[in-house]
Amino acid sequence: MSGSSFGQIFRVTTFGESHGIALGAVVDGCPAGLSLSEEDLQKDLDRRKPGQSKLVTQRKESDAVKILSGIFEGRTTGTPIGLIVYNEDAKSKDYESIKDLFRPGHADYTYFKKYGFRDYRGGGRSSARETVARVAAGAIARKVLAREGIEIVGYVAQVGPVKIKKIDYAQIRQNPLFCPDPDAVEAMTRVIQEAQSEKDSVGAMVEVVAKGVPAGLGEPVFDKLDAALAGAMMSINAVKGVEIGAGFKVVEMRGSENCDPITPAGFKSNNAGGILGGISNGDEIVVRLAVKPTSSIAIEQETIDIHGRPAKIATKGRHDPCVGLRAVPIAEAMMALVLVDHFLRNKLSRLG
Amino acid sequence: MSGSSFGQIFRVTTFGESHGIALGAVVDGCPAGLSLSEEDLQKDLDRRKPGQSKLVTQRKESDAVKILSGIFEGRTTGTPIGLIVYNEDAKSKDYESIKDLFRPGHADYTYFKKYGFRDYRGGGRSSARETVARVAAGAIARKVLAREGIEIVGYVAQVGPVKIKKIDYAQIRQNPLFCPDPDAVEAMTRVIQEAQSEKDSVGAMVEVVAKGVPAGLGEPVFDKLDAALAGAMMSINAVKGVEIGAGFKVVEMRGSENCDPITPAGFKSNNAGGILGGISNGDEIVVRLAVKPTSSIAIEQETIDIHGRPAKIATKGRHDPCVGLRAVPIAEAMMALVLVDHFLRNKLSRLG
Amino acid sequence: MSGSSFGQIFRVTTFGESHGIALGAVVDGCPAGLSLSEEDLQKDLDRRKPGQSKLVTQRKESDAVKILSGIFEGRTTGTPIGLIVYNEDAKSKDYESIKDLFRPGHADYTYFKKYGFRDYRGGGRSSARETVARVAAGAIARKVLAREGIEIVGYVAQVGPVKIKKIDYAQIRQNPLFCPDPDAVEAMTRVIQEAQSEKDSVGAMVEVVAKGVPAGLGEPVFDKLDAALAGAMMSINAVKGVEIGAGFKVVEMRGSENCDPITPAGFKSNNAGGILGGISNGDEIVVRLAVKPTSSIAIEQETIDIHGRPAKIATKGRHDPCVGLRAVPIAEAMMALVLVDHFLRNKLSRLG
Amino acid sequence: MSGSSFGQIFRVTTFGESHGIALGAVVDGCPAGLSLSEEDLQKDLDRRKPGQSKLVTQRKESDAVKILSGIFEGRTTGTPIGLIVYNEDAKSKDYESIKDLFRPGHADYTYFKKYGFRDYRGGGRSSARETVARVAAGAIARKVLAREGIEIVGYVAQVGPVKIKKIDYAQIRQNPLFCPDPDAVEAMTRVIQEAQSEKDSVGAMVEVVAKGVPAGLGEPVFDKLDAALAGAMMSINAVKGVEIGAGFKVVEMRGSENCDPITPAGFKSNNAGGILGGISNGDEIVVRLAVKPTSSIAIEQETIDIHGRPAKIATKGRHDPCVGLRAVPIAEAMMALVLVDHFLRNKLSRLG
Repeated sequence: MSGSSFGQIFRVTTFGESHGIALGAVVDGCPAGLSLSEEDLQKDLDRRKPGQSKLVTQRKESDAVKILSGIFEGRTTGTPIGLIVYNEDAKSKDYESIKDLFRPGHADYTYFKKYGFRDYRGGGRSSARETVARVAAGAIARKVLAREGIEIVGYVAQVGPVKIKKIDYAQIRQNPLFCPDPDAVEAMTRVIQEAQSEKDSVGAMVEVVAKGVPAGLGEPVFDKLDAALAGAMMSINAVKGVEIGAGFKVVEMRGSENCDPITPAGFKSNNAGGILGGISNGDEIVVRLAVKPTSSIAIEQETIDIHGRPAKIATKGRHDPCVGLRAVPIAEAMMALVLVDHFLRNKLSRLG
Repeated sequence: MSGSSFGQIFRVTTFGESHGIALGAVVDGCPAGLSLSEEDLQKDLDRRKPGQSKLVTQRKESDAVKILSGIFEGRTTGTPIGLIVYNEDAKSKDYESIKDLFRPGHADYTYFKKYGFRDYRGGGRSSARETVARVAAGAIARKVLAREGIEIVGYVAQVGPVKIKKIDYAQIRQNPLFCPDPDAVEAMTRVIQEAQSEKDSVGAMVEVVAKGVPAGLGEPVFDKLDAALAGAMMSINAVKGVEIGAGFKVVEMRGSENCDPITPAGFKSNNAGGILGGISNGDEIVVRLAVKPTSSIAIEQETIDIHGRPAKIATKGRHDPCVGLRAVPIAEAMMALVLVDHFLRNKLSRLG
Repeated sequence: MSGSSFGQIFRVTTFGESHGIALGAVVDGCPAGLSLSEEDLQKDLDRRKPGQSKLVTQRKESDAVKILSGIFEGRTTGTPIGLIVYNEDAKSKDYESIKDLFRPGHADYTYFKKYGFRDYRGGGRSSARETVARVAAGAIARKVLAREGIEIVGYVAQVGPVKIKKIDYAQIRQNPLFCPDPDAVEAMTRVIQEAQSEKDSVGAMVEVVAKGVPAGLGEPVFDKLDAALAGAMMSINAVKGVEIGAGFKVVEMRGSENCDPITPAGFKSNNAGGILGGISNGDEIVVRLAVKPTSSIAIEQETIDIHGRPAKIATKGRHDPCVGLRAVPIAEAMMALVLVDHFLRNKLSRLG
Repeated sequence: MSGSSFGQIFRVTTFGESHGIALGAVVDGCPAGLSLSEEDLQKDLDRRKPGQSKLVTQRKESDAVKILSGIFEGRTTGTPIGLIVYNEDAKSKDYESIKDLFRPGHADYTYFKKYGFRDYRGGGRSSARETVARVAAGAIARKVLAREGIEIVGYVAQVGPVKIKKIDYAQIRQNPLFCPDPDAVEAMTRVIQEAQSEKDSVGAMVEVVAKGVPAGLGEPVFDKLDAALAGAMMSINAVKGVEIGAGFKVVEMRGSENCDPITPAGFKSNNAGGILGGISNGDEIVVRLAVKPTSSIAIEQETIDIHGRPAKIATKGRHDPCVGLRAVPIAEAMMALVLVDHFLRNKLSRLG
């Protein structure tokens, strides 16, 4: 059944596979009157783009986006915005040797079980390449949010055992790791390179923060803002955990310690991560996601083939040693898509 | 905007407030032919019911459910199933003294900001009492799943600092903590009672496992099974984090360690928590949620009133010292609702 | 699959059968702050109620509606509004003799084919009694619309061969036929009574008009306002045709005759029925529906039983000789539900 | 708000404007395993294509469709199918003279009122050119339906005052009018040419029939099959009325005449048009739609400009004198989209 659409009001539908002709999205429900150009989208796409440092996959894609519809004289018309990015550097031959094998940790096995056969070229639809469409759509969401003073910033908070100790937003774009702590960059880089040299990969934690979000966003009881964020983040490839504010730390906290006291000047702490009862409280929204180590590794692993026979596999090709790094712009895009949808939904909460 | 419906195919819509006349749900999309009685629902409701031990709120509700429609001669007809549970022991007067104050950690502030005014009696719609409707609907989902050999079991895995060390399913219903480790029950009880005696509350971690789930459930790329589970669990009151399988542990794992090798006999490990690429892989589905300590505590806290003036508040009334305990049947219900919806959706994946 | 919900923003989900315990609805998405009481709903329900004249079914139902949730201190809170109407005068024994027979023109055959068995008591879910929930929900929609100056009025425009010749809104509530032309009442009554005395029934045409609708409502290209109205009206029991404005007359019209000229004072004619390109143009919205003659007639008809064997059937019980009459408040309710949903959706069309 | 998606399971989202870069669709929810090629789609697109006879617009478009995703080795993979058709012969200059004027009968006025400004080139999104995407998506639906033995055929049943007197399916593709009665072709042609020579246009009635539809399709009470069809057909440009089976004739019928008697061999008549209680009954589904005369006419008409000042307008450019003709393949496509969606939904009606 269909599952490639996101959002109720600002609705994004994506299509495309890793080695298909093109990837794209239709953004339906963007309000009319937004000034929008391809450059607005390209900026975010360029941050997600592969091949930008030695720490990521060497696949070369310009990821040039084309807006096909929904814009007239530089502004959105209120009609669906069609977006397309053609694939350029797909090397499908790399995958022929594994077309009958299931790569451990990948979706090969489950797609095969679900659909009866699968597009084995680069993971097909299950590839993180699909997120190019999310980032393009997310860039439109960000422009709507920016007009409201809402800003989203993501960064890598941990790579393997290396954690950031401080957050300097200005640093994030100064290094290929999206790391806000300049003192952690070297250690993180070493952890990744070590794994890579051992044909292995490494996990990471990404943190995304939204500033300037007004109180009131979120639709209880199922479409709560935190529920939407959790679903959105967990839909990103390789994510295995999501937490808001204090997150898993609340398990060992006392109520008196966890409750954020309220003062006329605002909340005294932000264990809530900006969300109470599923609705934004006006404080910063803070979400963290756990990204597993890349499943494509060159170390030989046990598997089976499509006939159920035991086999060995070592994944070659061009892979990220730490996919967590590249999750940053994607997580930002998903945060933007959640917030714009809930920002619009919230306009209907009260009689005008 | 509407946000009280869950599921695409097996669609549940709930209504009702903590101190209103009744709570209820409409379950639309349950296939025809399922044998179903009020007793089937009551069993699960009784597990969620307040007042069953000294460790939970002393509010007394029979939580007797009535099926209003959708059943004929003991079987579902394929038409919507209306469910209703009348409130009996709402003590609204307890709340009059705080009607102009925002309780820290609660949704009081955000509901007020969103809707312009709020039903202050017992938290209104934001109360965990709302979940009575989820549990009733979840019981129907479980009956559908049971026919397919799918079983769901939840338990408390940690209370404050006390973690379980083993899992004995038979023990879960033997203690009021839904604890699967008999050796942990005493320590957990002590942690809760200590907090209670200090007018405080304590957090917990709940784990939910689904057995017998076939491979193939989940609809990429946004309606992935893990995305649906994360959203569903995060929509439960007081949940601040959700993880699948190895969860946040993946951050510090290597790929070679995290990838579950595949053999003709199945997966050799289950770091994936039963989900690969957003689709069930046939292994056990394992989800964990972090539940914050109850926000209603008798320790005085800083807050403001609806006019923005500073104030002090100490919440009296009948409250759970550890809401995490009562989250167990609710988390099971949400797991059941996600699985039944995706079980039905998956029937449409391939040409018949 | 679920199909008992209507609307994207102002979302109504109904439940209940003709001879079940109760009928009801959940209205999710009504904005907060609307002053609302049970009396507001009862007024419309009383207009739909059976047993009010000799021209309609003699089933006696008080149709007293109870609001279960979503209201606090006389105003909507923005949370789901639960509505319930208990059945009182269901005479299920009337139906036992036909439980294995399919009544021609009814849904007996199709429900049996779809679901494998059916609730044969009074048509179960397929009965027009289900519309009690729509009328209750529609009354809430009307209150929202009234604040915007939008008013909806329906009437019978034709009964069998008798057509109205003029429209006097004040007359509609003066006769049990909802007829706006006092000169047509007698002839219409005679046509119905003649059919009744011959154990037969008669068709009718209903017209519904909405005044005060601002330009801009409707969401191309699939959720156009006329598309929504057509779907809504066709979902009413016994409706076989829907037209907007000039309707089927356009087939024989020339473009020069059909196009409504635009002047600074407004449109010079209203062949469009108030909708252009699927969006309201500010003129009156005019919809007509063809309602078939009641299928339950006492004249013996050919049919088959559930085993496929030929049989004869003559439907006894308490039936409307002209269901079209009772379709008037239902059509008004559906118009209200469409308009309120699109009124709210349209608020999101442009950047604020 | 978004409104460019159709269907719940087999979900189509379209984008594109008359004079934009491209039109397209994403079909999400097509089951895996369907053999599909661009030729399958092109066949239907070629029937809709402009410029094929003197009776239609002379705009020249190859309407060549490209499948961008969702197909692997000739079969659908279960992932979204991206479709694109580039515009080739858009002559936007034709429209500059009317960019500040509202064409009567068109969506110019309402789009302007809704969105605050509009893409005036060829009607932008409101142009019937948008339906190219529907026809492409509909062709996929037809392939799914064909496997089930379901076939859809549409034709022109009336042009102005000229009605068909017989239906010979073999004739439909033999003339540019999609007319099934060879004896009516000449008169219809004359009516159109007369209107054209007088700078005017003419209305038409289209009939669409589905054969081989099994009993059981349709989801009461709002997503009834007839409700879905009515909404789908009314969403087609220029349609002002929809009827099923006997349609508006039921107004003057008696119940005894209208009820289709049931025999072991099937229904003795088909006044129901194949739908009872909103569910298909196994008989032919028969839908008729009234298509208004083309609003673009060269006769001068009264209008206003965007500043509200009176003006005169005579629409030049390349227009169909009878848009009803070109509605035939579009109506077939919409019928196919409704049926495939309900065919899939119905698979979930009963426990397997």
